[in-house]
Amino acid sequence: MFLRNSWYVAAWDHEVPAGTILARTFLDEPVVLFRDEAGAPVALEDRCAHRHLPLACGRIVGSTLQCGYHGLVFDRTGLCVRVPGQTQVPPGARIRSYPVVERHRWLWIWMGDPAAADPATIPDYHWNDDPKWVSVGDRFHVKGSYTLIVDNLLDLSHVQYVHGTTLGTDAVVDFPVHVTRHDDRVQIDRWILDNPPPPMFWRAGNLDPAARVDRWQLISFYPPTHVVIDVGCAPAGSGAPHGDRSKGIEMYSNHTITPETKTSSHYFWHHARNFRRDDPAITEFLKKAAGGAFFEDVGIIEAQQASIDTDVEKLPRVDINADAGVIAAQRLLARRIEDEAARR
Amino acid sequence: MFLRNSWYVAAWDHEVPAGTILARTFLDEPVVLFRDEAGAPVALEDRCAHRHLPLACGRIVGSTLQCGYHGLVFDRTGLCVRVPGQTQVPPGARIRSYPVVERHRWLWIWMGDPAAADPATIPDYHWNDDPKWVSVGDRFHVKGSYTLIVDNLLDLSHVQYVHGTTLGTDAVVDFPVHVTRHDDRVQIDRWILDNPPPPMFWRAGNLDPAARVDRWQLISFYPPTHVVIDVGCAPAGSGAPHGDRSKGIEMYSNHTITPETKTSSHYFWHHARNFRRDDPAITEFLKKAAGGAFFEDVGIIEAQQASIDTDVEKLPRVDINADAGVIAAQRLLARRIEDEAARR
Amino acid sequence: MFLRNSWYVAAWDHEVPAGTILARTFLDEPVVLFRDEAGAPVALEDRCAHRHLPLACGRIVGSTLQCGYHGLVFDRTGLCVRVPGQTQVPPGARIRSYPVVERHRWLWIWMGDPAAADPATIPDYHWNDDPKWVSVGDRFHVKGSYTLIVDNLLDLSHVQYVHGTTLGTDAVVDFPVHVTRHDDRVQIDRWILDNPPPPMFWRAGNLDPAARVDRWQLISFYPPTHVVIDVGCAPAGSGAPHGDRSKGIEMYSNHTITPETKTSSHYFWHHARNFRRDDPAITEFLKKAAGGAFFEDVGIIEAQQASIDTDVEKLPRVDINADAGVIAAQRLLARRIEDEAARR
Repeated sequence: MFLRNSWYVAAWDHEVPAGTILARTFLDEPVVLFRDEAGAPVALEDRCAHRHLPLACGRIVGSTLQCGYHGLVFDRTGLCVRVPGQTQVPPGARIRSYPVVERHRWLWIWMGDPAAADPATIPDYHWNDDPKWVSVGDRFHVKGSYTLIVDNLLDLSHVQYVHGTTLGTDAVVDFPVHVTRHDDRVQIDRWILDNPPPPMFWRAGNLDPAARVDRWQLISFYPPTHVVIDVGCAPAGSGAPHGDRSKGIEMYSNHTITPETKTSSHYFWHHARNFRRDDPAITEFLKKAAGGAFFEDVGIIEAQQASIDTDVEKLPRVDINADAGVIAAQRLLARRIEDEAARR
Repeated sequence: MFLRNSWYVAAWDHEVPAGTILARTFLDEPVVLFRDEAGAPVALEDRCAHRHLPLACGRIVGSTLQCGYHGLVFDRTGLCVRVPGQTQVPPGARIRSYPVVERHRWLWIWMGDPAAADPATIPDYHWNDDPKWVSVGDRFHVKGSYTLIVDNLLDLSHVQYVHGTTLGTDAVVDFPVHVTRHDDRVQIDRWILDNPPPPMFWRAGNLDPAARVDRWQLISFYPPTHVVIDVGCAPAGSGAPHGDRSKGIEMYSNHTITPETKTSSHYFWHHARNFRRDDPAITEFLKKAAGGAFFEDVGIIEAQQASIDTDVEKLPRVDINADAGVIAAQRLLARRIEDEAARR
Repeated sequence: MFLRNSWYVAAWDHEVPAGTILARTFLDEPVVLFRDEAGAPVALEDRCAHRHLPLACGRIVGSTLQCGYHGLVFDRTGLCVRVPGQTQVPPGARIRSYPVVERHRWLWIWMGDPAAADPATIPDYHWNDDPKWVSVGDRFHVKGSYTLIVDNLLDLSHVQYVHGTTLGTDAVVDFPVHVTRHDDRVQIDRWILDNPPPPMFWRAGNLDPAARVDRWQLISFYPPTHVVIDVGCAPAGSGAPHGDRSKGIEMYSNHTITPETKTSSHYFWHHARNFRRDDPAITEFLKKAAGGAFFEDVGIIEAQQASIDTDVEKLPRVDINADAGVIAAQRLLARRIEDEAARR
């Protein structure tokens, strides 16, 4: 089940340069993305109304898309505006169009009722294009459900098992999380006090690996699939838990997942820092380190999905204490999906 | 749904040389083709009556086929005539055999009731071995329904979008077709008057690309899947529309599709000309040009089939004027299939 | 359908060296094999109780297995004994464990009720580690049902069609088998008297290819999937049929099949001889010759399975005289499976 009335990331801005057509499936629907003559993104159903050839096999003509089979032309609203060889367009010759907005270096698509699409509700990922931050990011295709990816991001007790050489330290799991349930989000916060920094932190921050730091992992989950993670560390006892981060380093590890099908996903992420911003070596290091760590998660999630797919008995899954945030988030999303179904 | 009581092309003659076994699936049934000692083609079910090993794993013994597992021998009627190690053949030890006839360089198979198989009803493709014509051809395997391939061939308004550099000119779609419905066929004719010839025509016919010609596309559809296309051009105003082709060039672009499964097909075609017959460079050019153009269609059809397969909502398809011939042909075939079902 | 209360071979001993985890599916269940600190084999469900990641993605810790996602630890009984970050293990946190016994160079697993697992019922394959014999063997993965493989082994009339250049001679099928039905096994015996030896025999035994020998194929089938084949030959008339093998050569061609799924299998075999035991060239020759011949069977079985899978009509299979042993074995196995179902 998917939440339909919601903004999802369809693509990075640079994945849809002027003059090219990008085909991608979201929520089980084939979509084609391109830019009109003014450079604004357009999202249409990837299927001609006539004989169902994917429009990705066609070509951009001005601000319209022309099918590559018999030349029917569709405008950005999905209306067929020309049928070669005849003067009238037959009634009903239209395809779905999807609201699409470009913001924070991402193209956001609305897969639900277009009348309900309000760009003001696009989640805040300003770190991705805010000049005060330097952000790196990528997109992974994952053969796993979006729910498994969100679960992964909301329970960071996995970092010492999955990311032992990058993000993890042995101590993470011994510091419990504090979960706060809001109407619009779940907050999952962990403070790891008076401990060594993980490898990625001391390398990026030029810290002493043997130093003692107070480290934070403050996770905000916004349904359906948006995860903003405020991470960083400061010298132990320098006041970070009380708000003074002036002696520390801050990063945002941000993620958003767009379902492709029930069991596959587009996983978009960016990682932003506000220190050593002019050092391209650090930028490159963080892109590789964050991407490498998240790709370790992809391996886990794909193995997990395959295990679930072959489990014909639908065996139960046991919960542990670390799942508190995950469970709160699942409930919030389930409630949203139920509300949406009830309104239909 | 398939029309069973009908001749279909199983293979080119040269695909089944003496001494070799060809396995191919038609109408969802596995079939094995080989030649008997006299060189006559034989078509049997590709499945031993004993333990269902494909007989394609066996060997030809005289005019019979011997299974490669336990040595059972089947004659051209499908009857088991020998079981090694025993003197009696068990009752019921037989497999299906299919009427098969070699004509016009193709092997024709009858997948329906053998008693109804009349070789006189094999469609006329004499251009493929008539000494007055030089014919080139090939076979494509297509991951698409036979109906999509037939639709493609009956509506040539696609040529300017799919074959712009070979068969197409911009004007095709502006000249409407004239559709005639007969009991046994549909005729779909288009005359493109006083226009430049398409690239393949002026290259093959050594014409002036800037010349003005009267060009014809006269399509005969015979159910279930036979399409004979009479194409050519003559100098504009030289009388071709009234029957005088003496100053023009004529070609036959002929096609026949054999369903493999509901969503895959064997696509056989040949392209014949009656001019510059002694020039092997033209023969080679036409083989490459026609094959290249038809392979562009294969790409379209496979994309279209994939689009249809993933359309869980079974969305309707809008018709346009150019579909008149396609729709007439679909109705004629549907009527034949219904008649056949009613008789069973 | 599978017989569950039965020993199956899970792996060769050398496939599970200390410190490594082997993942393999048996009877449609994912299993993970490893060795405890004492070197004893352990078999667990390959699925963490928490979020179903395969435990094959984890690591061995002492005599336990730790999940590679959140670090849950399972002991050899399948009980979760540690959840990082909490002091209590949640009730119900356990996975299946399977009885496993190492014998005759194979690891034997019991997929049924553990209380019924009696190592005394492991079938006798002593030839595989008896110092009086030299044994070679291997494991094949087969995309075919275990029943097809057993059928293949119980009807050796196929050897002259499938293994003409190795195990076969033209005469095999002309010598009928003698089938004896016991409560616990089926015995299928064939004597081929006064005939030339097959190529593998005269090469291994250094015999005259033109010699006349009395040759035996004495097959014992133990349900569900165990096949012991006593093969050999002695000079014609030297008394072998009456028990005097002193002038001949003896080999055991032994097989056991473990279902992976309904249509795929793990096929384990070994081939033992008690002559020319110190000659490594003969050992090497027999490993290649036996393995090569059995691999010919794999090709046949996979083609047969594919043929059965595409047979939507479920066409009947005709039986022949040579199937007497196969049919007796199928009945014995069917009876065991019915008995087991009745007891549940």
